Amino acid sequence: MTVPQHETTTTTDRPRLVAEPHRDGVDTAVAAARRVIAALLRAGDGSGADMNAIAARLDAMADGLTEQAPAIEERLAQMWRGQGVTRHDPVTGPENALAPPLHLHGKDDGSVEGVVTLDLPYQGPPGHVHGGVSALLLDHTLGVANHWGGPSGMTAELTLRYLRPTPLFEPLTVTGRQVSVDGSRIRTVGEISAGGRSCVTVSGLFINKHLPRPS
Amino acid sequence: MTVPQHETTTTTDRPRLVAEPHRDGVDTAVAAARRVIAALLRAGDGSGADMNAIAARLDAMADGLTEQAPAIEERLAQMWRGQGVTRHDPVTGPENALAPPLHLHGKDDGSVEGVVTLDLPYQGPPGHVHGGVSALLLDHTLGVANHWGGPSGMTAELTLRYLRPTPLFEPLTVTGRQVSVDGSRIRTVGEISAGGRSCVTVSGLFINKHLPRPS
Repeated sequence: MTVPQHETTTTTDRPRLVAEPHRDGVDTAVAAARRVIAALLRAGDGSGADMNAIAARLDAMADGLTEQAPAIEERLAQMWRGQGVTRHDPVTGPENALAPPLHLHGKDDGSVEGVVTLDLPYQGPPGHVHGGVSALLLDHTLGVANHWGGPSGMTAELTLRYLRPTPLFEPLTVTGRQVSVDGSRIRTVGEISAGGRSCVTVSGLFINKHLPRPS
Repeated sequence: MTVPQHETTTTTDRPRLVAEPHRDGVDTAVAAARRVIAALLRAGDGSGADMNAIAARLDAMADGLTEQAPAIEERLAQMWRGQGVTRHDPVTGPENALAPPLHLHGKDDGSVEGVVTLDLPYQGPPGHVHGGVSALLLDHTLGVANHWGGPSGMTAELTLRYLRPTPLFEPLTVTGRQVSVDGSRIRTVGEISAGGRSCVTVSGLFINKHLPRPS
């Protein structure tokens, strides 16, 4: 259900795959929030940290931000206007603290690629990446690959094969490539590899349609 | 690659599917961190919030927590001891701010079920859940269903079908059920539905083996 409706740059007429960072903006705070997520999990209970005091500070911060935020309808419309569309997703979005983030770039052969190292919050089996996190990264990467390589659309079917455990704390290469377009049916493949060895492969069927953007 | 090696309760000899909340502990701070993640995305740029000041406060918090945290090897061992195993995953874990969290419970018919409402951080298409997030929730739910219904293992293959867009801001029912065990091959199915209508279905093949726990 990935719908990467990225902006087209006016200078190159190629789609923009990565949002431009907003220095001194929300991106800076989101990067720090990612550090807090990992540090909370790293500390756990029994570290001696005063978790009630930390909770109170975070709650006050959330209250303040929510007070200043636009109405949800307005914010949704804003998100889906212009460059906003690449800024908020949970895989690459600089405004979304859930995103590692994965930085994808388009290649001349029509594929997209990115390298990411995942920390404790993305753990499934001991010391390894959660299989569902791999699925999340790959679904999104296929969506971006469609946008880069040809028509894009919504996920209709996704098949993932887990060949070996995907390690945490090591650079992972994530790739995607559109392989065929038959009417509205788009087929796209991708992979996560570590140290040159394939860990997870994916094959997706996408349908060339999009949900309306809120306005 | 989900490996839910949940603790067995001594009183009922049934597996524990949900971690016990730690009041006044890290869970409280993590719940507040989830609010900050959503509020940052809700506010975005242009809300008037001083994002540099917020970033500085979050960075200081992360620094303090990291200083007090145990060494990573020790923390990994701690995570995989006893009840810890249900506490840190990115779907149900009360220590993991990436987790919505989804609260799953086992049913007498051998299936597991949970209800969750997802907010902006989990968005894919406009106003709807990211297809990769649905995959993450379902992979984990199948792992827990295996643990509840019979032998558990690691994900070998996962096939997801997206029938209709999955809405944000509405209660979603997530279910999983083990359907067959043939030697080490375990087959498990699951679904996400909204308002009684199926949005995503999943079918998984799991292999009955586990990675060693760090010690």
